[in-house]
This record gives sequence, structure tokens and C-alpha cells, in this order.
Amino acid sequence: MTDLDDAIRTTRESVAALHAELTRYGLVIWTGGNISGRVPGAELFVIKPSGVSYDELAPDNMILCDLDGNVVAGTPGSERSPSSDTAAHAYVYRNMPHIGGVVHTHSTYATAWAARGEAIPCVITGMADEFGGEIPVGPFAIIGDDSIGRGIVATLDGHRSRAVLMQNHGVFTIGKDAKDAVKAAVMCEDVARTIHISRQLGEPLPIPQESIDALFDRYQNVYGQAPQGELQ
Amino acid sequence: MTDLDDAIRTTRESVAALHAELTRYGLVIWTGGNISGRVPGAELFVIKPSGVSYDELAPDNMILCDLDGNVVAGTPGSERSPSSDTAAHAYVYRNMPHIGGVVHTHSTYATAWAARGEAIPCVITGMADEFGGEIPVGPFAIIGDDSIGRGIVATLDGHRSRAVLMQNHGVFTIGKDAKDAVKAAVMCEDVARTIHISRQLGEPLPIPQESIDALFDRYQNVYGQAPQGELQ
Amino acid sequence: MTDLDDAIRTTRESVAALHAELTRYGLVIWTGGNISGRVPGAELFVIKPSGVSYDELAPDNMILCDLDGNVVAGTPGSERSPSSDTAAHAYVYRNMPHIGGVVHTHSTYATAWAARGEAIPCVITGMADEFGGEIPVGPFAIIGDDSIGRGIVATLDGHRSRAVLMQNHGVFTIGKDAKDAVKAAVMCEDVARTIHISRQLGEPLPIPQESIDALFDRYQNVYGQAPQGELQ
Amino acid sequence: MTDLDDAIRTTRESVAALHAELTRYGLVIWTGGNISGRVPGAELFVIKPSGVSYDELAPDNMILCDLDGNVVAGTPGSERSPSSDTAAHAYVYRNMPHIGGVVHTHSTYATAWAARGEAIPCVITGMADEFGGEIPVGPFAIIGDDSIGRGIVATLDGHRSRAVLMQNHGVFTIGKDAKDAVKAAVMCEDVARTIHISRQLGEPLPIPQESIDALFDRYQNVYGQAPQGELQ
Repeated sequence: MTDLDDAIRTTRESVAALHAELTRYGLVIWTGGNISGRVPGAELFVIKPSGVSYDELAPDNMILCDLDGNVVAGTPGSERSPSSDTAAHAYVYRNMPHIGGVVHTHSTYATAWAARGEAIPCVITGMADEFGGEIPVGPFAIIGDDSIGRGIVATLDGHRSRAVLMQNHGVFTIGKDAKDAVKAAVMCEDVARTIHISRQLGEPLPIPQESIDALFDRYQNVYGQAPQGELQ
Repeated sequence: MTDLDDAIRTTRESVAALHAELTRYGLVIWTGGNISGRVPGAELFVIKPSGVSYDELAPDNMILCDLDGNVVAGTPGSERSPSSDTAAHAYVYRNMPHIGGVVHTHSTYATAWAARGEAIPCVITGMADEFGGEIPVGPFAIIGDDSIGRGIVATLDGHRSRAVLMQNHGVFTIGKDAKDAVKAAVMCEDVARTIHISRQLGEPLPIPQESIDALFDRYQNVYGQAPQGELQ
Repeated sequence: MTDLDDAIRTTRESVAALHAELTRYGLVIWTGGNISGRVPGAELFVIKPSGVSYDELAPDNMILCDLDGNVVAGTPGSERSPSSDTAAHAYVYRNMPHIGGVVHTHSTYATAWAARGEAIPCVITGMADEFGGEIPVGPFAIIGDDSIGRGIVATLDGHRSRAVLMQNHGVFTIGKDAKDAVKAAVMCEDVARTIHISRQLGEPLPIPQESIDALFDRYQNVYGQAPQGELQ
Repeated sequence: MTDLDDAIRTTRESVAALHAELTRYGLVIWTGGNISGRVPGAELFVIKPSGVSYDELAPDNMILCDLDGNVVAGTPGSERSPSSDTAAHAYVYRNMPHIGGVVHTHSTYATAWAARGEAIPCVITGMADEFGGEIPVGPFAIIGDDSIGRGIVATLDGHRSRAVLMQNHGVFTIGKDAKDAVKAAVMCEDVARTIHISRQLGEPLPIPQESIDALFDRYQNVYGQAPQGELQ
């Protein structure tokens, strides 16, 4: 097995397994939602097939694509169609070379903010840690060309947040690898829910900008067992 | 085993198994809710028995009925009563020959809209994909004659939506087969919840009608592994 | 084994097992909540011990009490204290001879109505089926004497509802046996939640009184596999 | 094995196992939240490692610290970093000698109150039992020095409540041991949720102060199987 084969295998296993986090945290229903991961050292990524139940996902039915979103013929899973959001994932990988993972869900609270086209304000310290400020809104864009991908990149490029609320649609998250993007999806829904609930009975208190900056800086750079700094 | 025996057996297995999706997604409690499926090629359908726990459902206690809702004597399960909503299911099968599955639940958010007699507006793209517009309200009708069935058919016939909110009652969904109707029930509750939550803190942004049309058309006709086009 | 021994054993098994329904439906946390069941044909009932984890409940640690709430010495479990709500259960059994089961929980939505001292209006047909009208509020009463039991009986005696919201406290339900009271607890929380959510965005439409009466009458008298008429 | 070894082992086992209660009740996501427990009879406590999945927690990866929050070198788990909240836990143990357990979560409803900087009013009897009055708010304090620990102690010292809502952050709870602090975390989220929901549709009725006092006194002193008085 070559190094590339090995990298593809590892990415297939990781991407398949990570989908269980989406169901564990209730971020997806039926066959909705999808995760992809870039194959390290290659112009390739691995993504969920379209319309397959979460119970049936396995490394060998993940689909290998090039960075234009074309399925690599003759590889495991290639007899199936990749996620209908593949073009958006591919656009992100082509245009954000430091990004190794992309996640898309219609998780309830994040989508509720997205339907109003309203950014989530940064009023809890855990959100400052993770997102470094508000979670922004991306444009209304319908499926069928690069407009979703362009909206994600235009919104997140240079932004601290790894999550974007696509207006009237749902949430896309990015990360240094698929696990990091999944973590962002889980945390995004959590803060979307907590801050929604807080605002139901009044206005949350703001956090001073310098405290947000200090929390974000520390979380990204100081703590955690692993280089990526997962805390607590 | 004849082809008809085989079709009945397959329908029993499918209808029994699909009930697990109702509990998985929290759409039902206790013995509430029911699924039926038309037996392909016959004037028959299979439905859940009345008052039996979800833990005990199995192919052989599903009940075989004719299209007037009468239990077919001497078949497995026929010693029990079918769902108290059998007349409504039967009415749908008699009057909507292209429909192969019917589901009824009192799922929380859909029923909350139904109690106000308020249609769910189409403000998220996933709802445009799945329902092609708003989820309409059907009339107030109490059990005991054909009025529930008539209300379902009068509301959904010719409508894009496969779900109807029966006023002060709950939701009925239809589909090309039982699985498709179950998917509609799961998606209906999901959009009922998301849009409810979105509206708690303001008004969701509308989606232009031409975008709703484009999303619905594409979802029904272009994507997915299977003919029915389950996406993502 | 005498008939009485047999009845006690059966009641212990039933009451112990039914507690799993309270956790399944999320009606209780930690060691909160309790179920009791009258021993058929005897002046006795069986109740949950105080402060024991739901994971550890078993027939032999249920506690046998007389109708004054005194533990029957020398019986299995009698080395422990019974639920701190035992006096309230005993009061119900002494004063409502047709009642065979009592359940108490602090389930979230029912308790939210109870904290406002507000009855739950009957605006969904499933509630008309099950409760025949509104779920009433009982008096504020603190633990330590018969005041909780008196409040339950004074509110529910002659009322269609098998559930009472004790002001600022939680919910008590009654039934012909423990299972029937558990069903009432599950359905009470369900309607408390659905109607709460419905009212968050407007006023639910009323159901005409004659329809409520017709639904309740039919549900109690006509349908279902078992004499008690569990539907759907 | 010395008595100290034995006490450390027992504390490791207890603290590791109790983390399952945080996931069971949905108080934490990903690697968030943490529990610590004082080693009885020693100037030591055991705490969760930083950034480790809840699925992987075990007695031997819990981390042993002295009361300044320094990891005890050469002990199991000491190759990892302790929770990033270790300094706050250590501050509590140094300054509240009767406290044997500390828990920190960002549980949804408690954090929603914390984001508004609003204490939870005592309007349900179960809250009077458990907390003896309102759950107070502690100061805004960011991680990095003793300010979180100081805020916890300043707020809870001499207060009946074992829970404090740290402004814009989350909740810390304390107890006579780790289990007691976990119970406080579970009950805090429960009352935060119930009272939030109650207030969505009006104002909960107050409970007279003398009733709150009577309930708290009775719950702490009279009932339950175990000395700590866990009821129901």
C-alpha cells in the first residue's frame, strides 16, 4: 500500500466514523447533512454519498473526489452519487488550501438564526474561545452552481469563525481536518441554542471585545493536550 | 408463496420496521401514531394495530385491511383491532391511487402549528426541496366517520406538500410508499420545529417563489441514488 | 404462595418495571419522581423507595405499605424508607377506592404550568380523548402532612382529568392501575409541552365543548384492544 | 496498598464514573465540562484531563493534583494536562475545606440565565428543597488566574445554593463530595429549564419565604436513606 493509499484509507475511516457525531448530537435527520475530509498530501477529498442512511455509512461507501468535485472512477463507492453538496465542499478545498474538513448540517437552532439572516452574537465565553466573535451570515444561494461555495469562502476567508450560517438554508463549518470541522458544527449548534434561549427572556450582557480577543487567543494558542487545543 | 403473499409479507415487514423511525425521531409517545402501506398490486393495505406498544410491533401483528378499512379475516393479526385511524388511511388509499403510504402522528411542533390552525411558511431551502412550499392546514374533523380522510384528501390532492396539519389534531403525511410518507413525517416535524424557533425571535426572511420552485423541481427530478431522490 | 402473596409479587414487578417509562420519556431526573400501585384485593400498596437510583430499582426494593403509609415490617425493602411522597399516595388510596395507581413527577412542561398556577386548556383532540377537558391546578401545599393528598383528591374527585398540576410543585396522576397512571403522566407532559409551544406564537383555536365531550366519551368507551381503551 | 492509595483509587473511580451523568443528562458536549473530587484525608484532588473524549474517561486517566492545582508527577494520567479549569477547582478546595466535589458545565439553560446575568428565582418546591432559594450569579471573570475561583467562593460561601451561574460563562456547583456536586449540576439545569419555560408565558407565582425555609430545612435534615438526604 502506497502512502497515498494509506492516506485515502485513513481519511475514509475518519470521515465515515465522524458522521456518528452528527447523529449523537442531533444535528441531522434522515439522510441530511454531510462531512468531507481532504486527503492529506493529495488533490483529493472524501465525502458522504447522497441519500444513504446514517446507519449504513462505512469507509467503503464514502466517495473519493478530485478538487473539482468529480468522483474518481473505479474507487470504492464510485458507483454511487456523492452528496448533493459536493460542489460546495470542492469549492472550499480549491479556495482555502489550509482547510482540511467541511461539514454541512441543517441543525435546528443554527438554521433558525439563518432563516432570519441574523448573525449569532458572541455573548458566552465558550463561544469566544471557539469562534473568536460572532458567527456570521452568508448569502442566500441555491444549489446548482458554485454560488454556495463562493458564499462560504467569501464569508469565512479571513474571519475567525469556522462556521457560517447560510441564509434560509443551514450551516457550513470548516476546520483544519474533518474532526475539527465537526467540532465546529457541534459547538455552533450549542451556542446557537444557548444564546437563542437566553434572548427569549431578555438581552444577554455583552462581553468586552478585549476579553473576547484574550479568550480566543488563549484557546487557540495555549491549552489542550493536542496541538489543536481542545479544552476542558 | 404467490406473488400476492410475497407482496403482503414485504409490506408487513416494511410497515412494522418503519415504526422504529417514529420513536427514533421522537414523533410519538406511548402507543400513539401509526403507519400504513399499500400492498403493491392489490386492493389492500397493512396498518398498525390499535393500542400496542412500539416495543412489540412485528410483521405478524400488523393488520391487513381492504380499501374500505375492513380487517381481512383469518390473516395474521386479524384477531386484534386495527389503528383507530384506519378509516382515514383507507379513505386516502381509495381516493389517491398513486399514494402507497400514510403516516399519522401528534408530533410536538407540527401539532403546535395545527392547534393554532396556522400553515407552516416555506422559509428554509430544505423545506422547499421536500414540500415545495407551505405545509397546509386541513379542517377540524373528529374521528368516527370519513371526515378526517376527506379533509386530508381535499387538502393534499393537487398540492405539492405531502403533509397536512389537521386543525387541533396532528399531522398526516402521504407518500409513494410507507417509507416516503415516514420521511415526510420526519421532515415535517423538523421544519415545524426549526421555523417555530426562528419565529420566536423575529420574522424569517422569505424565499422568492422562483427559488422555491427551482429547489422543488430539482429535488424531485434530478438528484439522489434512488428514483425518489433522497438527497444529501 | 397465597393469592395475596401472588398479588403483592405482581404489583412489585409492575411498579418496579413501570419506572423505566418515566426515564424513557424524560419525566424524571436523578432519583426524583415515584410510582405506586395498589395491591388488588388488599389494603396495601407498593411504592418506590426514597433516594434510590432508577438504575437500581427492582421488585424486591419496592416497599410495601398499608393505606396509612406505614411500611409493612419484615417485607422485602422494608429496611429502607419509602418515597417522601408516600403520605400523599396513601391519602389518595384511602379516599379514592377506585384508584389503583398514583404517579408523581416534576416533568418540565407540566411543572412550568404549575409554577404559574395555570390550568392547561384542552385545545388538541388527543387531550380531549385522554383527559376530557383541561388539566386542573391543585393548591399550594408543602410536604409534611396530608395537605398534598387532600389537594389531589379535592381537585380530581369527580373530575374527568387523571392529572393535577400541584401549584409551584409538579404533577400527580391517578389511574385504575399503576400503568394507567403512568400513561396519564406521559400524556400530561406531552400535552403540556405541545400546548405551551403552540401558545408561544399565538392563541390555539378552541375545540367546541360538544366535540370534547364526544371525543372523551368515545375514547373511554368504544375503542382499543384492552378494556381500558388505549388507542392508535 | 496504604489508606491514602486506597482513597486516591476510590476517588479516581468515582470521579471517572460520575462524568457519565453529565452526558446522560445532556449537560455537556464534545470534551466540555469537568468534575473533580477531593481525596478524603489528603491535600489532593482528582480531576478530568483536558480535551479527552467522554467515551475515553477511565480511573487511570483522571489526574491527581495538589491544592495549588499542580499535577502530582509520576502518578497515572500525569503525562496529560488537567482540565483548563483546574485552577478554579483548586481555589475552591483551598478556600472551602468542607467542600469535597466541584463540577463545571456550560449546560444550556443555566448558561442562558448566566448570559443575561440573571439569578434563577426559587418558584418551585423542588428548588427550595435542593437550593434553599435562588441560584445566584457570580462575576464575569476570564480564565487565566484565580478570578474564576475567587468569584465562585465569594458567591457561594455562606449561601444555601450549591450552584453559581458565572456571568456570560456557565455554571459551577459544589458539594460534600463529587456525587453531591454532580447532583447539584443536574438539578440546577433542571430548574433553570423549568423556570425559563414557565416564564415564557407569564410570571410564576412566588413561594412564601417561610415555605422555602421549611422545605430546605426538612430536605437537608429529615428525609432520605443516606445521610445526605436524597429524596423521592
